[in-house]
Amino acid sequence: MRAAMADGRLAVGSRLPPTRVLADELRVSRGVITEAYRRLTEDGHVEGRGRGGTVVVAVPLVTPPAPSGPPSRGSAAAPTGPTPVAGAPPGLAGPGTATPAEPRPAGPRGGGQRERGAPDGLFTREPDDAVFDALRSAPGRVDFVPGQPDLAAFPRAAWLRAERAVLTEVSAGHLGYGDSRGAAPLRRAVADWLARSRGVRIEADEVLVVAGTTQALTLLHPALRSDGIDAVAVEDPGSFGTRRHLQYGGLETPPVPVDDDGVRVGALRVTGARAVLLTPAHQFPTGVVTSGERRRELLHWAADGGLILEDDYDAEHRYDRPPVPALRALLADRVCYMGSVSKLLAPALRIGWMVPPPRYREALSEAKRFTDLGNAVLPQLVLARLMESGDLERHLRMVRARHRRRRDAMITSIAVHLPGAVVHGAAAGLHLTVTYRRDVTDTDLAAAALAAGVKCQPLSWHRQLPGRPGLVLGYAACPPGVVAEGVAVLGEVLRELA
Amino acid sequence: MRAAMADGRLAVGSRLPPTRVLADELRVSRGVITEAYRRLTEDGHVEGRGRGGTVVVAVPLVTPPAPSGPPSRGSAAAPTGPTPVAGAPPGLAGPGTATPAEPRPAGPRGGGQRERGAPDGLFTREPDDAVFDALRSAPGRVDFVPGQPDLAAFPRAAWLRAERAVLTEVSAGHLGYGDSRGAAPLRRAVADWLARSRGVRIEADEVLVVAGTTQALTLLHPALRSDGIDAVAVEDPGSFGTRRHLQYGGLETPPVPVDDDGVRVGALRVTGARAVLLTPAHQFPTGVVTSGERRRELLHWAADGGLILEDDYDAEHRYDRPPVPALRALLADRVCYMGSVSKLLAPALRIGWMVPPPRYREALSEAKRFTDLGNAVLPQLVLARLMESGDLERHLRMVRARHRRRRDAMITSIAVHLPGAVVHGAAAGLHLTVTYRRDVTDTDLAAAALAAGVKCQPLSWHRQLPGRPGLVLGYAACPPGVVAEGVAVLGEVLRELA
Repeated sequence: MRAAMADGRLAVGSRLPPTRVLADELRVSRGVITEAYRRLTEDGHVEGRGRGGTVVVAVPLVTPPAPSGPPSRGSAAAPTGPTPVAGAPPGLAGPGTATPAEPRPAGPRGGGQRERGAPDGLFTREPDDAVFDALRSAPGRVDFVPGQPDLAAFPRAAWLRAERAVLTEVSAGHLGYGDSRGAAPLRRAVADWLARSRGVRIEADEVLVVAGTTQALTLLHPALRSDGIDAVAVEDPGSFGTRRHLQYGGLETPPVPVDDDGVRVGALRVTGARAVLLTPAHQFPTGVVTSGERRRELLHWAADGGLILEDDYDAEHRYDRPPVPALRALLADRVCYMGSVSKLLAPALRIGWMVPPPRYREALSEAKRFTDLGNAVLPQLVLARLMESGDLERHLRMVRARHRRRRDAMITSIAVHLPGAVVHGAAAGLHLTVTYRRDVTDTDLAAAALAAGVKCQPLSWHRQLPGRPGLVLGYAACPPGVVAEGVAVLGEVLRELA
Repeated sequence: MRAAMADGRLAVGSRLPPTRVLADELRVSRGVITEAYRRLTEDGHVEGRGRGGTVVVAVPLVTPPAPSGPPSRGSAAAPTGPTPVAGAPPGLAGPGTATPAEPRPAGPRGGGQRERGAPDGLFTREPDDAVFDALRSAPGRVDFVPGQPDLAAFPRAAWLRAERAVLTEVSAGHLGYGDSRGAAPLRRAVADWLARSRGVRIEADEVLVVAGTTQALTLLHPALRSDGIDAVAVEDPGSFGTRRHLQYGGLETPPVPVDDDGVRVGALRVTGARAVLLTPAHQFPTGVVTSGERRRELLHWAADGGLILEDDYDAEHRYDRPPVPALRALLADRVCYMGSVSKLLAPALRIGWMVPPPRYREALSEAKRFTDLGNAVLPQLVLARLMESGDLERHLRMVRARHRRRRDAMITSIAVHLPGAVVHGAAAGLHLTVTYRRDVTDTDLAAAALAAGVKCQPLSWHRQLPGRPGLVLGYAACPPGVVAEGVAVLGEVLRELA
């Protein structure tokens, strides 16, 4: 089983055969299988899901020595016994759970991983969408690509319960063409949610339900252009994906530097852009929280005719600081607010919301209507239920505790393995950024890390202006042990390159 | 209960209280309630749904006399006893099930319906999107607005079963950002479905999953424009909504007349348009099937450089004729195929697919990616399961039988109540069109019908060129008794106007 997990035959999410079936097949007693599953569970590789069976949740980093039969592909160079990485907890599920049978990786470039490493040239050219996709789908045992919550924690049971209730109660009329601005219960639930968690007090009919922030931007492109706006200033560093999206929509994206208080408003004025896209609650990727003084400056800028596109992408996730209200709460007329469930629940749901300034509301509603006649109705009603029943808040509390442990593991490991590196923006969100002073480009570092099985984004991908090298490290999707191992690999790779 | 249904307090889809609860509340024996529910079931007003309880599926046309208390709003003029419409089956659920206690409508304009009729001016101006929306949401006891299948038949239990299986089996990795072109299982299932039911043989990766045909058109706009296409010819009569959508995308829509063999290719050539949007399997709204000879002419036109946008909106629904393969099956390079589940299952799902010609594939995939990063994943996996398990085909067989009975009821009633009217395109689909020779405009007729509680679209809304007046009548959403009553209203209204 461990071998099958390591070489990909049993991927994360796969279901193990029922113990009885496997016992029959292997002609051993069921107790043997039960014991094997118990050990895999203790090691954090699999998880019992009741009627869902036993499911693979984390795979070992290298293939263990096969007890019989030919070694699986790519495992020929694997070490034949435990060789713990210094400082890494011994087991994926936390300290003290490794069994002697479970080998650990030999080092950042050890084992048979390298041949499954980086697609050629991924980090040697200017980043584009293909590069981001390639990184996302590249093989890698540790995935620090930012932007995903702990998807293993997705509240499957609560979702299914809510779906059953919706399917039982919804009238046939609601299965037709609905309100393209969103199902009324979800618009109400989002308005309540934003009031409770983001300080934004609005009526339900100010909410436009969309298919995530990506679609929010798509709807904004023509609305902005017809308002005479042909450039949207962006934070620097700032999300590459957002910048590319604005460019795809025919908009220019002049960069504005971010400092420890947020985006620099003086520099914003210099660009002459009439709109700016901001991530004020937890700047991407630096994690800076826009300070009170900077907020006041921004609001002055906006009051002079500027438009703020507020991307509130991960504001619900915070650990060591009080919540910061959304900018939208302070200046309704000049802020277009955008949020989604991608970081709250799962990107696969493709549900988000906008709260546009009143003068854009009609144009955006019409754009949504022509784009797809509105989001699918059933998932909207399910989400509304989860929001109003308190299930979503319970889920958020639960993942917050998980994410915090993962973040703590990352900070601890960085202190051990990347001495001298500076951690940015770790008080909130699902990722942190490290910068370092060495004479190694972050693309070289990320390339070497990927070759050693660790996926992360170089900070320079998110820059238009020059700046220190760094890495953007998502920790939310990796258990603490995996986080620690991945950072150890980064440390070793950096030492080798320097 | 009947009064509550008639005046809207118990809308279609509402769940009746459990018998035990209601018996307690009214201090009667449970048997009394059970018997009352049995009668409502026999009359076709409610339906038992197992654990889903007893649900309202069709409401009576007028409020019965209230046994006590003030009459509900709008029911003051209601007749006080049964007054069956001639020719209408006595009960909603079929002949022979009406009980003496169930009143029938007095006639097209009887009862208190008229005051809840048409919004002012709905039919007195050029149609636009607002007019279509207003008609859809206007009050009306009989809804002949075309474009909806029998939503009460939506396979809730099968959907929930499939969703449970998906939530049990899907890996956490699939809850992240997926393939924006569609989830692999659905692309495979759609390819299989199109091969089986539409004669289109393609690979799964030729399928682009989209949020319905509306989104397919949205994605096409820029692809067409960058291919130098600034006009898409449309059938006349032809779908108003599609035409408006193309215009919203900045494309011209020269009309091409439709005759009994389909669109007239000579007239198409005259327009000079390099693209045409067609509904060849069941032309909207006339129901014409494009003949073999006409198909050959179309394929010649396309081979000379023309592009066919094939909107296969309701092709799975047919009754008295063999299936017609999609045009896409005949000429892959020049046909962009579009289909969806809106007529197959429910518009609220917002799932559809395109099979573009190879040269458009990349541009459309990129457009989909930037529009919303792809459809939501869970519903895609659920639908794939329903397609591959045979559940969708079983559902289709079941609704086909229901739809056929409704269509038959409509044809029979038209013969009785609209003598001289000509029925078009009833061999397939979810609607038919009637034309008539009288000196009454179809907008006046539709307005009077709406005032009498019957919602339908005037044929002229779907015309750019002059032509005979008519009505587009969707029958799929109404039980046979309701169909018959609605047509009787149309007949009486037309006689009054003439």
